[in-house]
Amino acid sequence: ARMTAKLTPLAASLPATVPFTGPETLERRTGRPFTARLGANESLFGPSPLAQQAIAHAARDAWMYGDPDMHDLRAAIAAHHACDASHVMIGEGIDGILGNLVRLTVAPGDAVVTSLGAYPTFAFHVTGFGGHLTRVPYISDHEDPDALLAARATKAKLIYLANPDNPMGSHHAGSVIEDMLNRLPEGTLLVLDEAYIDLAPPGTAPTIDPADPRVIRLRTFSKGYGLAGLRVGYAIAASPLIAAFDRVRNHFGVGRIAQAGALAALQDQGWLTQVQASVAAARITLSDIARAHGLIPLPSATNFVTMDCGGDGAHAARLIERLATHGIFARMPGVAPLNRCIRVSVGDDAAMAVFAKALTAFM
Amino acid sequence: ARMTAKLTPLAASLPATVPFTGPETLERRTGRPFTARLGANESLFGPSPLAQQAIAHAARDAWMYGDPDMHDLRAAIAAHHACDASHVMIGEGIDGILGNLVRLTVAPGDAVVTSLGAYPTFAFHVTGFGGHLTRVPYISDHEDPDALLAARATKAKLIYLANPDNPMGSHHAGSVIEDMLNRLPEGTLLVLDEAYIDLAPPGTAPTIDPADPRVIRLRTFSKGYGLAGLRVGYAIAASPLIAAFDRVRNHFGVGRIAQAGALAALQDQGWLTQVQASVAAARITLSDIARAHGLIPLPSATNFVTMDCGGDGAHAARLIERLATHGIFARMPGVAPLNRCIRVSVGDDAAMAVFAKALTAFM
Repeated sequence: ARMTAKLTPLAASLPATVPFTGPETLERRTGRPFTARLGANESLFGPSPLAQQAIAHAARDAWMYGDPDMHDLRAAIAAHHACDASHVMIGEGIDGILGNLVRLTVAPGDAVVTSLGAYPTFAFHVTGFGGHLTRVPYISDHEDPDALLAARATKAKLIYLANPDNPMGSHHAGSVIEDMLNRLPEGTLLVLDEAYIDLAPPGTAPTIDPADPRVIRLRTFSKGYGLAGLRVGYAIAASPLIAAFDRVRNHFGVGRIAQAGALAALQDQGWLTQVQASVAAARITLSDIARAHGLIPLPSATNFVTMDCGGDGAHAARLIERLATHGIFARMPGVAPLNRCIRVSVGDDAAMAVFAKALTAFM
Repeated sequence: ARMTAKLTPLAASLPATVPFTGPETLERRTGRPFTARLGANESLFGPSPLAQQAIAHAARDAWMYGDPDMHDLRAAIAAHHACDASHVMIGEGIDGILGNLVRLTVAPGDAVVTSLGAYPTFAFHVTGFGGHLTRVPYISDHEDPDALLAARATKAKLIYLANPDNPMGSHHAGSVIEDMLNRLPEGTLLVLDEAYIDLAPPGTAPTIDPADPRVIRLRTFSKGYGLAGLRVGYAIAASPLIAAFDRVRNHFGVGRIAQAGALAALQDQGWLTQVQASVAAARITLSDIARAHGLIPLPSATNFVTMDCGGDGAHAARLIERLATHGIFARMPGVAPLNRCIRVSVGDDAAMAVFAKALTAFM
């Protein structure tokens, strides 16, 4: 038999396993559809009706490529953040932007720092480009700025921090991030993942000059705006770094429909305000449900509540498994000590009732 | 001033210019919207109404991530090609798949072969991952299989060939590709870009076992299916190569809306048949218009007609410029001798009439 094309040494060294198991895959495995989809921190409150209309309306124009400059959406995002469009890059979700950012800045062997148990997709990309990843522990269920800054036996190209944090739902005040920036070593870029910032308390977003070369901020339409299925995220950073994305990105990757939907969502800030209120109320409901069933809800600055199940990872995994048999899709952190918890997305009263009923059935 | 994060040596070496100028950018520059968009080989006949409905319907589900396994679409594509789903990978357009393919197979310095003037996005990705690109000339406005195979002073990891070809619209019989495969050196992968295959004459698609490790075939929903704005393409190849994409791809990159639209489009083969007939008729119309204005239309197996303008690149560029002032977006090949031509997408009678009128105005 002929040999197939050889992978590069780097590609050949990467894990062959599929890193992401979606709820659809679990449903196909068990043959049972989930009745409540609470495992991916999607917005059960849905996208703005205006965004839905924009998507439907753009469908007839789907024969045209999207604007590769993404001018209109970029201008609207820039206006939203009161900055110049040269500070804004849009990509296929934060995931897509993280991939290109790592590609631009991390050569094989370069040091990168993240937290042990933090967003796995960042680690996936760092490993994928041959970076050397140092993972520091959480402290009291928060990502630990001091440990992240200290972990630089070799100087880090990137330090990743999500604020608010996934999977713990915790957050730091914006001033903590500002302080962290001031202590950042020369040549290190802070990757500040603000996917959940729209759902966090006032004061969580640090005040940062968009031209500040020490940091890249990442935002998304997947969480508060409820458009996870569209795949649109964006970065705010100094213009030279933003411009560098043009060297490597898939220029037509954010298509016409995605641009139209995201633009309409951004323009409907009233919907976002409504979602913020719904999420805040649902966090209380969900936390009450957790407590009523012997779980300890952690404070959350996101659209999910992480719950301490009072045991080890195996105990939490059994809970996830039982929830699944009762039609609930939920997830849990991957490593100790975070994995004593399960992570459940908030939703409307109906979804929260389904979750409560499942817990009641077996707790 | 603090330094920004340093790019990797490879990223720093890449051209800083934006490689793709969309029609929207040209419109913004001139302040004049195009009346006929004939420069990107989009399908002016539009997507299937069923695909449009599927997109509109999926808009309400846009809060959910797409299935990262893309199971349903993958299964439908596999059934369409009578192969196992393990031979199918879906990505953010052929562009996105090409990027990941090059990343998987081309290490810095590795040799890659393409044609001088062929699809620039492939070259963009090869350069972007540090590959060493050899470009061989076209022969009689066709990509030249013999030259592509011969260009291997250093052994090529990839040889790229589009059949039918963009930008010339020419094609080889499937048997030519089959013969090329049999002459392919051990360890070289043929990247067979079949973006326009849906619009080509019978016999253009070679007969290839999906498990054949010597080739990866690329297809898209952007051309015949009229869904360029959705960004969905796919690859057919041996299972080990397909599986390798999971090591690097943006797993949620093809979102829920894109999957739904592409699936509906694939299921409406009647629409594709209708588009094929419309394209074939419009090629004749467009070729007649060209001839009537002193241009020589080349035979086309695609949804565009490349026209020899009877001069050099500067002459053709002036034509493109004049067309633009008359509201026509068209493009031309980038290098001699192909750049004696302009490339014009086919469209409905109205669009073709607009093009004819513009030519009449200044030819």
